[in-house]
Amino acid sequence: MSEQQNEYLEVLGQQAKQASYSLATLTGKQKQQLLQAIANQLRSDTDTIVAANLVDIELAKQNGLSDAMIDRLLLDEQRLAAVIADIDNVINLADPVGTELESQVLDNGLRLSRRRVPLGVIGVIYEARPNVTVDIAVLALKTGNAVILRGGKETLNSNQAISRSIRQAVAKQGLPENVVQLIENPDRSLVSGLLKLDKYVDMIVPRGGQNLQRLCAEQATIPVILGGIGICHLYVDSAANLDKSIEVIINAKVQRPTVCNALDTVLIHQDVAKLLTPSLFAKLQQQQVAIYACPVTQDLADELAVNVQQASDDTYEQEWLGLSINVRVVEDIDQAISHIRRFSSGHSEGILTDSLQASEQFINQVDSAAVYINASTRFTDGGQFGLGAEVAVSTQKLHARGPMGLEALTTYKWIGVGQYTPRS
Amino acid sequence: MSEQQNEYLEVLGQQAKQASYSLATLTGKQKQQLLQAIANQLRSDTDTIVAANLVDIELAKQNGLSDAMIDRLLLDEQRLAAVIADIDNVINLADPVGTELESQVLDNGLRLSRRRVPLGVIGVIYEARPNVTVDIAVLALKTGNAVILRGGKETLNSNQAISRSIRQAVAKQGLPENVVQLIENPDRSLVSGLLKLDKYVDMIVPRGGQNLQRLCAEQATIPVILGGIGICHLYVDSAANLDKSIEVIINAKVQRPTVCNALDTVLIHQDVAKLLTPSLFAKLQQQQVAIYACPVTQDLADELAVNVQQASDDTYEQEWLGLSINVRVVEDIDQAISHIRRFSSGHSEGILTDSLQASEQFINQVDSAAVYINASTRFTDGGQFGLGAEVAVSTQKLHARGPMGLEALTTYKWIGVGQYTPRS
Repeated sequence: MSEQQNEYLEVLGQQAKQASYSLATLTGKQKQQLLQAIANQLRSDTDTIVAANLVDIELAKQNGLSDAMIDRLLLDEQRLAAVIADIDNVINLADPVGTELESQVLDNGLRLSRRRVPLGVIGVIYEARPNVTVDIAVLALKTGNAVILRGGKETLNSNQAISRSIRQAVAKQGLPENVVQLIENPDRSLVSGLLKLDKYVDMIVPRGGQNLQRLCAEQATIPVILGGIGICHLYVDSAANLDKSIEVIINAKVQRPTVCNALDTVLIHQDVAKLLTPSLFAKLQQQQVAIYACPVTQDLADELAVNVQQASDDTYEQEWLGLSINVRVVEDIDQAISHIRRFSSGHSEGILTDSLQASEQFINQVDSAAVYINASTRFTDGGQFGLGAEVAVSTQKLHARGPMGLEALTTYKWIGVGQYTPRS
Repeated sequence: MSEQQNEYLEVLGQQAKQASYSLATLTGKQKQQLLQAIANQLRSDTDTIVAANLVDIELAKQNGLSDAMIDRLLLDEQRLAAVIADIDNVINLADPVGTELESQVLDNGLRLSRRRVPLGVIGVIYEARPNVTVDIAVLALKTGNAVILRGGKETLNSNQAISRSIRQAVAKQGLPENVVQLIENPDRSLVSGLLKLDKYVDMIVPRGGQNLQRLCAEQATIPVILGGIGICHLYVDSAANLDKSIEVIINAKVQRPTVCNALDTVLIHQDVAKLLTPSLFAKLQQQQVAIYACPVTQDLADELAVNVQQASDDTYEQEWLGLSINVRVVEDIDQAISHIRRFSSGHSEGILTDSLQASEQFINQVDSAAVYINASTRFTDGGQFGLGAEVAVSTQKLHARGPMGLEALTTYKWIGVGQYTPRS
């Protein structure tokens, strides 16, 4: 990183930290007004933002990006309206800041409490979708945090227009516009620099694929919330209701196959494999799902003249994000759990069974953010879990695990009140 | 790191992860029995452990270590007995594992709960004191975690004897002895390797000085709990009771000056500086505390013919861990808060005042793990806070902040129970 970039980041960090102090003492009401002002400003800047997005789209076409990719970049009037409408939901969420987690008078005479406070400055690194710029800024501000945003270069024009609009709304509320800052220089070394800005930034949230997550884990000196990678499993136990199990499997696989909580691998107890597979294969084929089969599954498929491909450690490690699935027959629940321990990303797994013992064992021994009995892995979602908002889905174990709501953007401080009390 | 070291760590990690599965499903009663067995075993191995410690002490003397350092290494019969007695306290603490944080039936039909579970595998890197080997192993096991220990080379013989004793007790309880593993090779590259063992290790706790903390922040791909560095401040407001303030200042500075929550810098409102300093200087001198003075304080000292040294940004950045103190006169509370924001390590700060407004402002605007009104910074301690045990004192904001009790060694998983429920 150049001297100049170093200085740029240093100033960026200082500004964010300084701005965060103004946010930390706002009341819930003031934060609601701020968010309302942002929604209004974005609404009145719609033409500018949509025009900026068109520039991104045009560049993407020139650069030969795929239609699917271009669709992810697109922010037309309708989509922007939906993004703005979401701000209303956030406005009305309960503000966790200021609540006291516990309060007691200690034997030493101190009145001790733990109070929820904003984290301070949050760094978010994301790819593609420009709506993230709005979503994250709004969630950060709702919880009294300043934010440093680093979006993908494919949406630079859109992100610039959005952040300019948000900063204008912030300034009109008499607050420092540096509560929201966008890193506009596409040079990747700025990402590395941001990850080491531990003097000013309290948490990094990477929203993107495996490579971005890995980069952050390896380079950051700031705590990182890893997540969003879901290699998800369902295990059909010998005591499962097979017809109902197939329904859940199909739902988990095809209801929205491009997202992280979609199903990747089905494990089937050997005692029910022969009974389950005819109907399961038929339903999967009907939905045009490509099947990757273990040797036993392969034999079952051959008997039914169903066309499958060969599963391997490579395919078991896939987060498909599309219409493919691994099917493996296991000897028993222990082998299913071993498979999950080896290949899961710690996101979402489920057991399908009517056996209390099997469900207890699965719940206790599978170490993932969300573990289900007789339910689709697709439920792992802030909205479904009633959190009101979703910052990210964490697959690590510290601070926040699974869907992260507003609380995950806060920390606490201990407050001790004495009467000029020395420690004895 | 050599190929061989890489393999060694890989096996170490696998063994720890595998062993952690056996711990995760133990009942509270079983964990109590395990800890009791460890206490008994350590007691009966006292002679061996003390003899091993004598070897460390002998080597330390040969290597010319300071008396203070040698005292830190010493684990004689009496000290070991005290360490073992502490196990009894831990045995009787409530077991946080298995408690449900919340449980509800969602509109989508799912019964959703959040259950506290062990983190899995904890890596602890520490220096000097061999009692840490016992303390950390016991706290980790109490919460169902496996632990990988890396002590300082100065206590290698002691640590080997202790871990051998603990592992023997574990094996006698029919559990895998790899729930506790000690890295015995003193090569520092193994520390770097441990910090990147994210496939198996869930959290790293460094217990040591600034250099170790920094090394962990920079090299770890595993979440690290930074802490234990306390650059602590007390601010004497214009509305403070001065006599009582001096008592608190002296307590915070001298009651135990070698620890992280001891006072490092006093900030004094300019309106009360002239009134406060004569008595403050006298008391500090009486306790043989070296005074580092800002220019205004220097003038006040000169008038009183009190000998002081010059404070500077360098001295303001010191965690003294001894009988020294910075004294700075500030214009107002805002300047005091600015000073703290710049120089504090985020550990413990306090205001001394009878003004409600000033105390509110201080509490809201000072962003440290523990913030006090009219109390000594020395209170920041797991025991004083009623946590029963102290894993470390975190100065970062994620997962745990301030004194960390047993809960900080746990995470949670979401458990969703349906009736073969698909997501609609």
